[in-house]
Amino acid sequence: MKTPVSALVLAAGQGSRFRSSSNKVLHPVLGTSPLSLVLDAVRGAKPEKTYVVVGYQKEAVMAEAASRGIEFVRQKEPNGTGGAVIAAKNVLARRAGDVLIVPADMPLIRTANLKALLSYHRKKGNAASVLSAVVEDPSGFGRVVRLPGSGRIHIVEEPDASRRVRDILEVNTSVYVFKIKDLLSALPNISAKNKKGEVYLTDAVGILSDLGKKVGVLKMSYPEDAVQVNTRFDLSVAAHALRLRKVLALGESGVSVLDPLSTWIDLDVKIGRDTVVYPGVVLERGTTVGSDCRIYPGAHLVSTRVGNGVRILSATVAEDAIIEDGVSVGPFARLRSGTVLRAGSRVGNFVEMKNTDFGRKSKAGHLSYLGNSEVGEGVNIGAGTITCNFDGVRKSRTVIEDGAFIGSGTELIAPVKVGRGAYVAAGSVITKDVSPDALAVSRVRQVEKKDWARRKREKKDRKRRPNR
Amino acid sequence: MKTPVSALVLAAGQGSRFRSSSNKVLHPVLGTSPLSLVLDAVRGAKPEKTYVVVGYQKEAVMAEAASRGIEFVRQKEPNGTGGAVIAAKNVLARRAGDVLIVPADMPLIRTANLKALLSYHRKKGNAASVLSAVVEDPSGFGRVVRLPGSGRIHIVEEPDASRRVRDILEVNTSVYVFKIKDLLSALPNISAKNKKGEVYLTDAVGILSDLGKKVGVLKMSYPEDAVQVNTRFDLSVAAHALRLRKVLALGESGVSVLDPLSTWIDLDVKIGRDTVVYPGVVLERGTTVGSDCRIYPGAHLVSTRVGNGVRILSATVAEDAIIEDGVSVGPFARLRSGTVLRAGSRVGNFVEMKNTDFGRKSKAGHLSYLGNSEVGEGVNIGAGTITCNFDGVRKSRTVIEDGAFIGSGTELIAPVKVGRGAYVAAGSVITKDVSPDALAVSRVRQVEKKDWARRKREKKDRKRRPNR
Amino acid sequence: MKTPVSALVLAAGQGSRFRSSSNKVLHPVLGTSPLSLVLDAVRGAKPEKTYVVVGYQKEAVMAEAASRGIEFVRQKEPNGTGGAVIAAKNVLARRAGDVLIVPADMPLIRTANLKALLSYHRKKGNAASVLSAVVEDPSGFGRVVRLPGSGRIHIVEEPDASRRVRDILEVNTSVYVFKIKDLLSALPNISAKNKKGEVYLTDAVGILSDLGKKVGVLKMSYPEDAVQVNTRFDLSVAAHALRLRKVLALGESGVSVLDPLSTWIDLDVKIGRDTVVYPGVVLERGTTVGSDCRIYPGAHLVSTRVGNGVRILSATVAEDAIIEDGVSVGPFARLRSGTVLRAGSRVGNFVEMKNTDFGRKSKAGHLSYLGNSEVGEGVNIGAGTITCNFDGVRKSRTVIEDGAFIGSGTELIAPVKVGRGAYVAAGSVITKDVSPDALAVSRVRQVEKKDWARRKREKKDRKRRPNR
Repeated sequence: MKTPVSALVLAAGQGSRFRSSSNKVLHPVLGTSPLSLVLDAVRGAKPEKTYVVVGYQKEAVMAEAASRGIEFVRQKEPNGTGGAVIAAKNVLARRAGDVLIVPADMPLIRTANLKALLSYHRKKGNAASVLSAVVEDPSGFGRVVRLPGSGRIHIVEEPDASRRVRDILEVNTSVYVFKIKDLLSALPNISAKNKKGEVYLTDAVGILSDLGKKVGVLKMSYPEDAVQVNTRFDLSVAAHALRLRKVLALGESGVSVLDPLSTWIDLDVKIGRDTVVYPGVVLERGTTVGSDCRIYPGAHLVSTRVGNGVRILSATVAEDAIIEDGVSVGPFARLRSGTVLRAGSRVGNFVEMKNTDFGRKSKAGHLSYLGNSEVGEGVNIGAGTITCNFDGVRKSRTVIEDGAFIGSGTELIAPVKVGRGAYVAAGSVITKDVSPDALAVSRVRQVEKKDWARRKREKKDRKRRPNR
Repeated sequence: MKTPVSALVLAAGQGSRFRSSSNKVLHPVLGTSPLSLVLDAVRGAKPEKTYVVVGYQKEAVMAEAASRGIEFVRQKEPNGTGGAVIAAKNVLARRAGDVLIVPADMPLIRTANLKALLSYHRKKGNAASVLSAVVEDPSGFGRVVRLPGSGRIHIVEEPDASRRVRDILEVNTSVYVFKIKDLLSALPNISAKNKKGEVYLTDAVGILSDLGKKVGVLKMSYPEDAVQVNTRFDLSVAAHALRLRKVLALGESGVSVLDPLSTWIDLDVKIGRDTVVYPGVVLERGTTVGSDCRIYPGAHLVSTRVGNGVRILSATVAEDAIIEDGVSVGPFARLRSGTVLRAGSRVGNFVEMKNTDFGRKSKAGHLSYLGNSEVGEGVNIGAGTITCNFDGVRKSRTVIEDGAFIGSGTELIAPVKVGRGAYVAAGSVITKDVSPDALAVSRVRQVEKKDWARRKREKKDRKRRPNR
Repeated sequence: MKTPVSALVLAAGQGSRFRSSSNKVLHPVLGTSPLSLVLDAVRGAKPEKTYVVVGYQKEAVMAEAASRGIEFVRQKEPNGTGGAVIAAKNVLARRAGDVLIVPADMPLIRTANLKALLSYHRKKGNAASVLSAVVEDPSGFGRVVRLPGSGRIHIVEEPDASRRVRDILEVNTSVYVFKIKDLLSALPNISAKNKKGEVYLTDAVGILSDLGKKVGVLKMSYPEDAVQVNTRFDLSVAAHALRLRKVLALGESGVSVLDPLSTWIDLDVKIGRDTVVYPGVVLERGTTVGSDCRIYPGAHLVSTRVGNGVRILSATVAEDAIIEDGVSVGPFARLRSGTVLRAGSRVGNFVEMKNTDFGRKSKAGHLSYLGNSEVGEGVNIGAGTITCNFDGVRKSRTVIEDGAFIGSGTELIAPVKVGRGAYVAAGSVITKDVSPDALAVSRVRQVEKKDWARRKREKKDRKRRPNR
């Protein structure tokens, strides 16, 4: 039988170098947060129970971690990682077996890293196992010190390190597995007697080792997985790594992201095979894209569902929209919340839609605003069509039935309905419903004043010439 | 006299990790494809004849390589690189001298690399010459094994490699030169008796070496030139390298690309001296730009010809357009197929043109659509001008002669002509031709209802207050 | 008492590999230039006096360096760095103490580097101190040669270097401190007797060393700080490094730049805490952004002042504009010179403003052009509103008072004024002032022609069917 394992995620710190009004583990990154990424990785290691130690902005942290069956532990003082574990000692005392401890500001950690440490820990029968990394520049990190002769292992924080210890390139990643019983036995002996006056969890490792307990260190193959984010710049670097992982995975599933460096795809975005994503595209918050699509440069889609064979032209912006199969939209189109472009429809440049159901094979090619509208199939919306859906008091609906033709430069004063197959002449202001198959027009006779323009120019020229 | 050389390009593989309905060597990259890039590099080495071995999607591969004087060889089974060469043995038997063998999925290979191998091969009088690379991580590659004592050389594929062989960092790039006669003599002896059951061309190297033929290995200085693309991500990395080469060359010829990382310039794009390209610009498919231009962020030009001293403002999109000297266009302009902006004209924001010849020094500053139009010199197109070129049945032309002034918010119902120097009053719908120098107007007298708005507001306020 | 120090910045070279009509040290980089960056770094080292040696395009160079209290020295011939210093010998002869010599094409140099060299120079009591760097690829650089035994130091330019010297990885950065007296004494002995026929300042180092003067070399920790830009590509690489420095500093002050690689922020841009900058944003020329803002993808702001809590939606372009607190603007909005968006106002898509003061909490949501306008508080501008501010001869103003409602598709023919609380019906052309609280309308009765559209379709269908 496997030893049971619990997980303890440390999320109490302030992250002061973020200079933020929000806890650093909650900062958005590719549609998620460092905390959620760590909790995802931890979940993959299948702990029986996960605890999150909270402190700074605990309500917000708890909200982010909610609905995951997690229990929260409050760390009252910001007194270091040791303090965090001491705060959890009562809940740990109730659990058998091992505890996996992971900081919440480690957005690149993978389940595989955690499983490797757990399996190493069990195989060796350790009391404590530390995940370490060999890095080029160890400054700032606790060093893994193997005491000569004795085989004992200490972790020495940089401010307390001798020059010789500072030369060690193997550092503590701050990910551990402990036998809970041993960890609890060590806690009373760790103290804040060090240069920074914090309570270091790392002391527990040395204490157990000095007591002759078995302590081991597992070196990571890819130390970058264990990077902790201390600044917003660190987080942008981690985001970069996560994006490359995402693009790599998309590539393996048949999606072409032409320029991974300038493309931003949230981790929860799904894209179908043979779709091509051009440079400078941003896909956010659960957007899904079907297969055989082209997403051209600078498109920005948020929470939008895109079908198959769709062409999203340059710089198109959509939020909470649905774009069905075979649609072509953009460039410079803007689809707002509640827009549905039905299959095969075409939307062109400088067109905005909001709360509009735009029918199959209908077209709105240029410079139009359709709001609160229901547009049937095969409708042609001329350039410069505007649904006047707000009269200063209330919003009303516009209905345009199948096969209608709306001439250019038309205002449709809602509530209004244009019947099936009707034709609205260009330049009309439509205030009343239009019968099916009828022509509606509100237009003034064109008159001409001969030579008016010539005379105007001559007058202007005379003015320019000074009287002499 | 130089030994004659033929070239054999291997393009039969499926590239299954692309998970694509298209052969990986045909995937677009900066306006070309891996296959075309390899054929370009091969052509530079001046072979007497080039053969391309085709298999998976052979029609599409042949179409891409067409019009290059190439002969195609069909590989019937996907049985490895050895199989590809065996498929070509009859055509090779007709050629004298050497054969240069290059995989078609090697988009970064340069003529210089191929020439270096050919010249090494000839100088040494080799039967077989292998282009090798020393890499940090050799996993996945065939290792170059120099058998101790004998001087013999084998290439051992990874699945067949011993632990000791796997430690070798010198790998086969899959680029070779063979004496055709020796290659043909070795082919009958290569077999699929290996872990993957494929027929490896690499066996021929070992066979010749074992027979006492002279086999040599040339190490590349820049191994990245010989990268083979196995995934879409690999191709994006290769595209990145090609883009940097392109930007480097542009820089040497006097073009400033401010941010190479976020700029995308197809390899066939030409740009003149002292032109500045801002971040996020995408220039595709044969676009040419003159000297002293500014291309601002996010512009996207496709197959477009740009003159000298032009300013393309942010996020302008053009396809199949011509933009003459001294034009300023954008931001947010969209020039569609058949648009010509004559010298010194200015096109502003939210303006779309299609099939339109827009005259010298004319202006269309804002929110307009000009389609199927002919606009003379010195014309002023007011904001919100729309050519209504489609009546639901046919498309018609609009002609605006030199010096005309089109007031804002005008619809021009095509076919229609506005004469030289004429003036169209704002808000008109123009259905009939306008005489030269005349004023045309179709406008309604403005009427005022006193206090209407105040009463409306009061009514609304009353409604909001519940009856008490 | 500290030894006095003067500075000599070398800006006379042509930079021929830029192939530019402009001197390379003047090429714009992140809102400044290599020359200005070097002068900034030099100023930090607090010299008593700074001289700039000018030659190629000296007027432009002097203009860029103007208003800094700098004196210029003319180098008449392009005869190398030695020639530059010889040109300055008279002005140097007037100064006591040391001279710091820095090339003007070194945009990444920091005050800290210069101070370190100065302090090393003084501490050692050197006659000459050279800033050196150990690099992986020294080709093209002068090598620092320490003559065995004697302790003498020479700098040998590559064309004059033996094979053994070329293997040296420690190179001259071209930054020096000299005792002025010693430098002047060495100048008469340096010559152009070398492979390139240029007068090398580096000779002075060897001459002084050979004379038994104390010459020292200080190795830089980060050699990239001393990179000289010889091509436009070099400058883009330097710009990249400068951008990362900027983003790093912004991060430390509480600004989130989500994707440093695709974001372009001029060095003089200021951004407040908890503001988030999305990928693909370009912020130029003194733009300032307040706290708690969101700048969405592709926004391009030039010389624009943004308040707190502002949302700049995707692809918005602004130049010389002021955007007050709590405004939301875009996507696809364009604010031109002289636009002020007052607090809490909202500007939507495809809206252009120029020379317009847009009042508190007013809204212009869609497809509008407001030019030369004054818009009061709480005004609603309907979609497709156009101020016709140009009649072909002169520009006029439009005034819209507090609480007015402009219906969609309206043209306002300036000069015109819409009174407080007035209502303009959709589709109107407003040529006369509108009284406060009134309704203004210029609209035609809508008429309907029954079955017109059906008959038109049938006619079209008949035409399509051939007579049989």
